[in-house]
Amino acid sequence: MAKNSKGKKKRKYLAEAEAGSSPGSVYIDENALKTVITIHSYNSESYSAEEVPNLKGCKERLSAPGFTFWVEIKGFKSKSLFEVLYSDFNINKLILEDITSTYQRPIFEEYDHYNFAVSRMLYLDTERNLGNDQASFILMEQVLFTFQEGYENCLSPVKKRLSIGKGNIRTAGSSYLMYALMDVIIDQYFVILGKWGDDLDEIEDRLLDKPDRSIMYDIQQLKRNLIHIRRAAWPERDKLNDILRTDSPYISAQTKMFVKDAYDHCIQSIDIMESLKEIAASNLDMYLSIISNRMNEIMKVLTIVSSIFIPLTFIAGIYGMNFAKEDPVSGKLLPLNMPELYADHGYIYTMVFMAIIAIAQLIYFWRKGWFK
Amino acid sequence: MAKNSKGKKKRKYLAEAEAGSSPGSVYIDENALKTVITIHSYNSESYSAEEVPNLKGCKERLSAPGFTFWVEIKGFKSKSLFEVLYSDFNINKLILEDITSTYQRPIFEEYDHYNFAVSRMLYLDTERNLGNDQASFILMEQVLFTFQEGYENCLSPVKKRLSIGKGNIRTAGSSYLMYALMDVIIDQYFVILGKWGDDLDEIEDRLLDKPDRSIMYDIQQLKRNLIHIRRAAWPERDKLNDILRTDSPYISAQTKMFVKDAYDHCIQSIDIMESLKEIAASNLDMYLSIISNRMNEIMKVLTIVSSIFIPLTFIAGIYGMNFAKEDPVSGKLLPLNMPELYADHGYIYTMVFMAIIAIAQLIYFWRKGWFK
Amino acid sequence: MAKNSKGKKKRKYLAEAEAGSSPGSVYIDENALKTVITIHSYNSESYSAEEVPNLKGCKERLSAPGFTFWVEIKGFKSKSLFEVLYSDFNINKLILEDITSTYQRPIFEEYDHYNFAVSRMLYLDTERNLGNDQASFILMEQVLFTFQEGYENCLSPVKKRLSIGKGNIRTAGSSYLMYALMDVIIDQYFVILGKWGDDLDEIEDRLLDKPDRSIMYDIQQLKRNLIHIRRAAWPERDKLNDILRTDSPYISAQTKMFVKDAYDHCIQSIDIMESLKEIAASNLDMYLSIISNRMNEIMKVLTIVSSIFIPLTFIAGIYGMNFAKEDPVSGKLLPLNMPELYADHGYIYTMVFMAIIAIAQLIYFWRKGWFK
Amino acid sequence: MAKNSKGKKKRKYLAEAEAGSSPGSVYIDENALKTVITIHSYNSESYSAEEVPNLKGCKERLSAPGFTFWVEIKGFKSKSLFEVLYSDFNINKLILEDITSTYQRPIFEEYDHYNFAVSRMLYLDTERNLGNDQASFILMEQVLFTFQEGYENCLSPVKKRLSIGKGNIRTAGSSYLMYALMDVIIDQYFVILGKWGDDLDEIEDRLLDKPDRSIMYDIQQLKRNLIHIRRAAWPERDKLNDILRTDSPYISAQTKMFVKDAYDHCIQSIDIMESLKEIAASNLDMYLSIISNRMNEIMKVLTIVSSIFIPLTFIAGIYGMNFAKEDPVSGKLLPLNMPELYADHGYIYTMVFMAIIAIAQLIYFWRKGWFK
Amino acid sequence: MAKNSKGKKKRKYLAEAEAGSSPGSVYIDENALKTVITIHSYNSESYSAEEVPNLKGCKERLSAPGFTFWVEIKGFKSKSLFEVLYSDFNINKLILEDITSTYQRPIFEEYDHYNFAVSRMLYLDTERNLGNDQASFILMEQVLFTFQEGYENCLSPVKKRLSIGKGNIRTAGSSYLMYALMDVIIDQYFVILGKWGDDLDEIEDRLLDKPDRSIMYDIQQLKRNLIHIRRAAWPERDKLNDILRTDSPYISAQTKMFVKDAYDHCIQSIDIMESLKEIAASNLDMYLSIISNRMNEIMKVLTIVSSIFIPLTFIAGIYGMNFAKEDPVSGKLLPLNMPELYADHGYIYTMVFMAIIAIAQLIYFWRKGWFK
Repeated sequence: MAKNSKGKKKRKYLAEAEAGSSPGSVYIDENALKTVITIHSYNSESYSAEEVPNLKGCKERLSAPGFTFWVEIKGFKSKSLFEVLYSDFNINKLILEDITSTYQRPIFEEYDHYNFAVSRMLYLDTERNLGNDQASFILMEQVLFTFQEGYENCLSPVKKRLSIGKGNIRTAGSSYLMYALMDVIIDQYFVILGKWGDDLDEIEDRLLDKPDRSIMYDIQQLKRNLIHIRRAAWPERDKLNDILRTDSPYISAQTKMFVKDAYDHCIQSIDIMESLKEIAASNLDMYLSIISNRMNEIMKVLTIVSSIFIPLTFIAGIYGMNFAKEDPVSGKLLPLNMPELYADHGYIYTMVFMAIIAIAQLIYFWRKGWFK
Repeated sequence: MAKNSKGKKKRKYLAEAEAGSSPGSVYIDENALKTVITIHSYNSESYSAEEVPNLKGCKERLSAPGFTFWVEIKGFKSKSLFEVLYSDFNINKLILEDITSTYQRPIFEEYDHYNFAVSRMLYLDTERNLGNDQASFILMEQVLFTFQEGYENCLSPVKKRLSIGKGNIRTAGSSYLMYALMDVIIDQYFVILGKWGDDLDEIEDRLLDKPDRSIMYDIQQLKRNLIHIRRAAWPERDKLNDILRTDSPYISAQTKMFVKDAYDHCIQSIDIMESLKEIAASNLDMYLSIISNRMNEIMKVLTIVSSIFIPLTFIAGIYGMNFAKEDPVSGKLLPLNMPELYADHGYIYTMVFMAIIAIAQLIYFWRKGWFK
Repeated sequence: MAKNSKGKKKRKYLAEAEAGSSPGSVYIDENALKTVITIHSYNSESYSAEEVPNLKGCKERLSAPGFTFWVEIKGFKSKSLFEVLYSDFNINKLILEDITSTYQRPIFEEYDHYNFAVSRMLYLDTERNLGNDQASFILMEQVLFTFQEGYENCLSPVKKRLSIGKGNIRTAGSSYLMYALMDVIIDQYFVILGKWGDDLDEIEDRLLDKPDRSIMYDIQQLKRNLIHIRRAAWPERDKLNDILRTDSPYISAQTKMFVKDAYDHCIQSIDIMESLKEIAASNLDMYLSIISNRMNEIMKVLTIVSSIFIPLTFIAGIYGMNFAKEDPVSGKLLPLNMPELYADHGYIYTMVFMAIIAIAQLIYFWRKGWFK
Repeated sequence: MAKNSKGKKKRKYLAEAEAGSSPGSVYIDENALKTVITIHSYNSESYSAEEVPNLKGCKERLSAPGFTFWVEIKGFKSKSLFEVLYSDFNINKLILEDITSTYQRPIFEEYDHYNFAVSRMLYLDTERNLGNDQASFILMEQVLFTFQEGYENCLSPVKKRLSIGKGNIRTAGSSYLMYALMDVIIDQYFVILGKWGDDLDEIEDRLLDKPDRSIMYDIQQLKRNLIHIRRAAWPERDKLNDILRTDSPYISAQTKMFVKDAYDHCIQSIDIMESLKEIAASNLDMYLSIISNRMNEIMKVLTIVSSIFIPLTFIAGIYGMNFAKEDPVSGKLLPLNMPELYADHGYIYTMVFMAIIAIAQLIYFWRKGWFK
Repeated sequence: MAKNSKGKKKRKYLAEAEAGSSPGSVYIDENALKTVITIHSYNSESYSAEEVPNLKGCKERLSAPGFTFWVEIKGFKSKSLFEVLYSDFNINKLILEDITSTYQRPIFEEYDHYNFAVSRMLYLDTERNLGNDQASFILMEQVLFTFQEGYENCLSPVKKRLSIGKGNIRTAGSSYLMYALMDVIIDQYFVILGKWGDDLDEIEDRLLDKPDRSIMYDIQQLKRNLIHIRRAAWPERDKLNDILRTDSPYISAQTKMFVKDAYDHCIQSIDIMESLKEIAASNLDMYLSIISNRMNEIMKVLTIVSSIFIPLTFIAGIYGMNFAKEDPVSGKLLPLNMPELYADHGYIYTMVFMAIIAIAQLIYFWRKGWFK
């Protein structure tokens, strides 16, 4: 299951790699999910959310005075949706292409009558794999369009705040809404980094308790995930900075103050990422040194056992030799051949000699600190 | 105990990770400590410190002419405190949120009628664990508010100087007071780095004397701690630079000259951090090479013992073979079977031969430098 | 075959290394391919492509009003071509030298009556080796010259779009054509990186399943290739940025908007390169740790077997000693010599003793976790 | 002795770490050396040096027209000295604090009626330990004060040039004198780096000849020293750059031209440092690979000896088994038990078989290249 | 020989390290080579080269209208030469010092009536050691002085072009001549890098075929050489950039266009250096992993042989024990002592049992993949 989803991700990631297709052409994947369009309309007094089949003819409705509109679009199956955006809402085809080819870096761009922004929506799925979806924003005076390929509910906290009506989310216009959504996405980074921080703590505990080979894989996995999240967070920072410095009329001054806050959060998340990365590298070093240490332990056991018993076995081997005291055939005496074997205490002396050798070696190894 | 405090720290660090809560809402942790408010009022002639239950109605008192006030707030239990700060002192809710969510980077921000700053207050607790608390500052014309979540006494040297009345701390206004507090916090970095420098020296001594596995853990611990302190010190530098370049009317020119000094100290502390980091990495390299060297030592012992005695044992084994000189049943003579065993000096010649082999090997190993 | 092509590449790469030749001299390699010149002329209504033997006298034809011309030149055999470019089209000799010495970095330069640009055309050949050819551009009001040393068809998607006539490629002039060609080249980077990403995934699978020595070579190969592609992509980014900021009259404002898109793509490809590089480094670390782990496994087997059987063999050796119970010659009794051999259950006791030793060691090793 | 001096250094380095003392307070260490004050007064015609007990009342003398004065101060015992500097010469207390707390980074600062600068005076003591003292400069119109804590003679070459009177040192004023002193200090860096370069060459020779464990320690020592010298040289570069760009009236245009030269020298010394650092790292890599190689050598010896003799010993063991040809008790014949032992050439065949095995293995190992 | 020249180089490199000598003094090494001065005078019609004993009285000759002069100076023995340059040509003493102390970084400096530049002239000598000489340039309106300490002929291609008279070298003045010389020097970098690229390819082939210890030394040597060439190339780039941006009247606009080309070449050479550096590091990693792999191979052989034969030897050892079936003295029967020895097929069963153990182990190791 996890494998499959990974396979699917890869295919998407390569989707835009069809070299040579005409730029500005919207490419709809055949596996695209059914498009679901929800129009949230609200002002300080009221809030309503309505699902509509398509945006055909909605232009007028979305310019009702005194209201702010959030057009939330999930799933890219409907090709007609993008045609309407092009014809009725006058969105550049290059932008529509960027929305549908879902591996864009976070970006903020100003156009004549709208702004365009991209965020990377990161989340941990039920199996704790890192999901990495794209959220695209088209910001107009009164309307904010958001686009996401899948049905993940990362943005739901904002919906809740909209419906409860607390805070200035209901009065501060479309740019504040965009900020609120981006902030929710960045907040998610902290959730993910917090979980990974816990993972690293757990890995470190395992390192101290009983390091095994799986630690290596876990650290590698974490490092890969950090590579992905950093690839999202660094341009996110640049994007927020672009929003802070823009003169676009669609971003209110009040919103910018909040965006500054989100910018600080983003930098902070990058700080944590870099720390986690260094800690992961540090854990890896430690794991490697533990392997080396363990090798030393193994070698010590082998060396102690071998060094003690191989010489002893040799001595035993000597007295196992069959040099004869007399020639069995001629009966000639050979008194120089192994007289020890016929000494009265030969066996006992030999055993004592062996014991001395063994003890001497034990002392030698103990002095070298090999028993610690 | 150390474990527990670490666990607690982690929970705090994730506190702000509750994605999607409305920005600008002050979140009070249920384990927050009881709020203690102390108002220090002083001028060149007098100094008094008084503990007050809350700040309700204190606004007027804090504008008494000719005095500078330091409102020192420890513990965030009292929600009403933050309400008073919002209503009476007109502090932005985003700021109040930053004060209570206690993992902010060092920062300096100017607002209409006050400045806001954050420092990371680092200290070693009694078990030499690194504590990392937040000190927040709100600077007004006559008043400096400081906020800290716990009851640590890092700022007490300034209180002593205030009460003794030496230096220009009593006459130089609220911005000088803020500088003095920040400087005390940075001075603490040097204390910590000094201790760690000693630790590194001690680790290096142990490396030379008797390196064991605990060295690895100690170096890792130090590296982790350095990661944390660097995460505080680098933005601290930026913050002080922001103070140096600000036009804020609340920062006097005289104060800036002192802030320049604190800025130099901060850079110097970063220098030391980087050096310690490099030395720690260097020690780690050395430890790894020592493990490798030790492995070589172990292998040498094994190889020398094995290489000498395994061939000798083989020779002993040969003369332990039972090839018969005559068939015990038929009595047929087999003169080619191991005539050595029945030679007059067979045993002695064999022993001498073995000795020659052993000595030749010893010479070979000695020439290879394996006995050094 | 792959070796040969590599050898050939090296020679080319060193071609310009003939120190001291006069700058501005066009050097034609003796192995240069036959020059093929194709003139594509098109406007919104028509498109035709014609192969011409040389450019002599084509100047007038290429200024026919209402048309845009793409002069596509492949193969540098014809020295007269470059003479015509110099005399008729007034192209600086330094430029012509840059075109023919085919290892230039991507660059964009403005001259009085034309612009000059270089792209690195990367592709995987049939054996998946990385090809790295140079595409040079000379951009004039109505005409775009492109130069490539070999006959690779990397630019063919643009020809197809020209002949089909879809998109604004037929109406947007020569600068848009140059953009379209550069974009096709960058798109190719994604194709290559996608393949390498797959390779890395496959390497990682092999790492987990059955790591062998070939993994090392594959990772090294990938790292080398990444070094080459990065050397092309970084200056490509700078080049596109130069095009974005230029005031050259030959680059239309509309084209610049598209170039911005290509610039974003280029940054994105660099992002992916850096990620792949980090993942490759990560895989290498993992491979090294797997080798170390495997060494530990091997050593464990050796140590367990040796530690158990060497002492047992020693015991067996002891009872293989020939200490005699009576002197075979004198018949003198030697009751202290190995009485165990003549005990009733000596053999069984010895075997039980050996079994106890072996089991004790097995328990010891099992407790140490060596059997996991 | 070397240990002691290191211990002393550490204490000094932590001296300023007394968090919370009032800034601007001059702290005199109780172990401070006795203050020695020498006033060098010179112009193009004359030069004289005189030791004075203190600076009380010297202010007038130091403004004698037509002379330049160098007030050389060594040792900080005299607290009154600093009081005089404060009262008579109007030197800011923060500056005096920086002079006495002797771990400042190189810095150049302009004040109303003087400039302040710090250099790090590095030298190798008699035991080739790296000494790192502070030289502080206060530059006025006619007067240059220099401060150093110890009595090292690093600045003596300048004294010699002053007394000999060659060069423009006698006519170019106080700023040229400051340059000359700083230049002498930087020249010293080259002396040190030259010695270390020799050390590295010698280490490399030892690596090739007979690498032992001490190499590791020597490389580590060198790396630590390089960390220290880099910490001095980088801010030194910035300081000289500050001097180049300053508008201070105390730095003459002529002096600046010389400072540019010193700046170039400083960059060059940093170049050499970075090279040495890379070469040291390179040597460390080489050392580690040599250890690994040596391990391989050791293991090869063990493996060759064991692989050859263990099987042979096994064969000898087999023919040492006591399977009986006839039951000693019942006399029953057991012809299947080890008939080889009673074969005519059993022993010789066995020996030949063993020799074949041994030779086959030798060939196998030789083919694998293990004997190289 | 190579050693000697290295020793000589070191001495030179430390020559300027005589701390404290007066700046601006020209120091002539006693081993300096005899000075050879060649004056090349040319214009579009004529070219002549003449060797002169010294420059005394040449000033007028070098201002003959309509000619450009190249004064080529090799060898620094003649002290009078530098005195003439100082007195007649008014060259600053600091410049003359920089010319003679031959380890300067590449630099370009403007003075009132001349420009000064330094290039590092790198070449491979006959033993392929890296030579690193200094070429200094003094550029005046009509005259270019070049200085080099030794007699290397790196600049001869330019002489050839001058004498042949092709290109605009004869008409474009002294600044073009300086460019041409600098370009020849940079071209040499490509020759060197090309050779090293070949070396790296050859090292990689050896890595794949038969890696031995010498590879390590070769890679180290290459890394050291790369460190040296990078130290020349980076400031070379800055120097060329300085020439591009200068307003100096001695650098013609036409020359600048060519210098831009040289600048691009320099960047390109740096690109190649960085690539070579990464490839060298990569090869080193590969070598280390090959050593580890080989260790694994060695250990596998040892473990397989030991694991199979040690247990078998133990079994043989058991049946070599001398437990007696009857007491030789009392004749008492001991039927429990090793009845196997007196079983009919005892020997054969034992051998079969041993074979089973050996085969089982072989299968086990084969399954673990140890035979691949």
